[in-house]
Amino acid sequence: MNAAPSSPVIILVEPQLGENIGTAARAMANFGLTDLRLVAPRDIWPNKRAAAAAKHAEHILESTQVFPTLDEALFDLTFVLATTARNRDLTKPVVGPADGIADMIANARTGGRSGVLFGRERSGLSNDDVAAADKILTLPVDPNHSSLNIAQAVLIIAYEWRRHEIGESLPFGTNDDTPPATKEELFGLSDHLEAALDEANYFRAAHMRPAMARNLRGILHKGHFTQQDVRTLRGIVAHLEGRYSRKPRGSS
Amino acid sequence: MNAAPSSPVIILVEPQLGENIGTAARAMANFGLTDLRLVAPRDIWPNKRAAAAAKHAEHILESTQVFPTLDEALFDLTFVLATTARNRDLTKPVVGPADGIADMIANARTGGRSGVLFGRERSGLSNDDVAAADKILTLPVDPNHSSLNIAQAVLIIAYEWRRHEIGESLPFGTNDDTPPATKEELFGLSDHLEAALDEANYFRAAHMRPAMARNLRGILHKGHFTQQDVRTLRGIVAHLEGRYSRKPRGSS
Repeated sequence: MNAAPSSPVIILVEPQLGENIGTAARAMANFGLTDLRLVAPRDIWPNKRAAAAAKHAEHILESTQVFPTLDEALFDLTFVLATTARNRDLTKPVVGPADGIADMIANARTGGRSGVLFGRERSGLSNDDVAAADKILTLPVDPNHSSLNIAQAVLIIAYEWRRHEIGESLPFGTNDDTPPATKEELFGLSDHLEAALDEANYFRAAHMRPAMARNLRGILHKGHFTQQDVRTLRGIVAHLEGRYSRKPRGSS
Repeated sequence: MNAAPSSPVIILVEPQLGENIGTAARAMANFGLTDLRLVAPRDIWPNKRAAAAAKHAEHILESTQVFPTLDEALFDLTFVLATTARNRDLTKPVVGPADGIADMIANARTGGRSGVLFGRERSGLSNDDVAAADKILTLPVDPNHSSLNIAQAVLIIAYEWRRHEIGESLPFGTNDDTPPATKEELFGLSDHLEAALDEANYFRAAHMRPAMARNLRGILHKGHFTQQDVRTLRGIVAHLEGRYSRKPRGSS
């Protein structure tokens, strides 16, 4: 599935290590983002280490655009978030991922394109970089452990974008070739089991039987059994029935 | 901030590389999880490569518990999610992160403790591992790029847990030493600007003035200016006023 044309552009500012570019691309691919831009990367582009780290996300590296300055990299964008883990002396709104994504979705609805800035490995974004953004985006990290590497920060943003864009649509679901058991099937199981237990003298006192049987039915009905589960359990009961009905004969 | 005692335990099954254990611990620390368990790691524990990769999350590695089997690692847990990127031939409910976290929160409310299983680097969790879990958890990845490394999968789960536990509580907020401008301050700015523009002969035709002034006020009111922004802009207007009121004198 390709990203919608309105999906945000990921912009890495002066990345040093090709490996980080590659793992960021891989994180984008995991959650369906495709458009990566680099501002003045340290090493020449294309970068072999980036390709090695990207694994199956080469398509992102192949279409990655490289710009000499941040302003040039933002040329066609109408809304930009700057990710940072520290407070800045800038009077700019600070949002978390959910609000930031909501802003980008609102921007996409007006026909605009959004971008998210990620800073240098050691020093992050400069105040000048942040000034070019509309808002600061920060993650709800534990303040004592706020440092994420680039790929991890990109992963969270890509994940949140996908969650908002497609909801929690999962790549696969519960195997439904064995649908949940109907009440009738569960009643059949409990009837079968109770008959077997009668045979095996489980309900010792007749006046105890109703409460014990009710308890047993309660257990069976809260098990969320599938039809296949019920068939398996009835097979077990049938097997034990045979054993109990044989054993007394053999041993007596 | 320490994790609540009800926060989920992260369980890595037969991890091969110490580096992955360390980066998983770091991802846990980013979002406030503390309890890590290892099932039959390949290398002896403690592991130097894990410590190097954990950066500032040594406290997690110091309290990490190691178990020879998965069953032993789950001993005190009452609800377990198995993370997997592929469909299984198992009749087990499949949930996404938000639903999985909701299940773990419900489990914590009953006094139970939850765990999340992460599989081997190459092969993931075996069907036997998954069978020990209550539900399968999978991420809403692009099905063509579904492979995440362990630290990234742990990061998403830790992030979702924290979001649900503390909401989108951010480590810092917008700098509020410059609160938003009041309407009175904005009216003062537009009055000042209009007076300066009158002086500079901007409104050429008197009948155009109301519409042009209204348009200008509209621009100023949608700028989300702070009080400091308004002071800065009034300083600019005052400066230009001086220039315009000087220039005609000097040049005429």
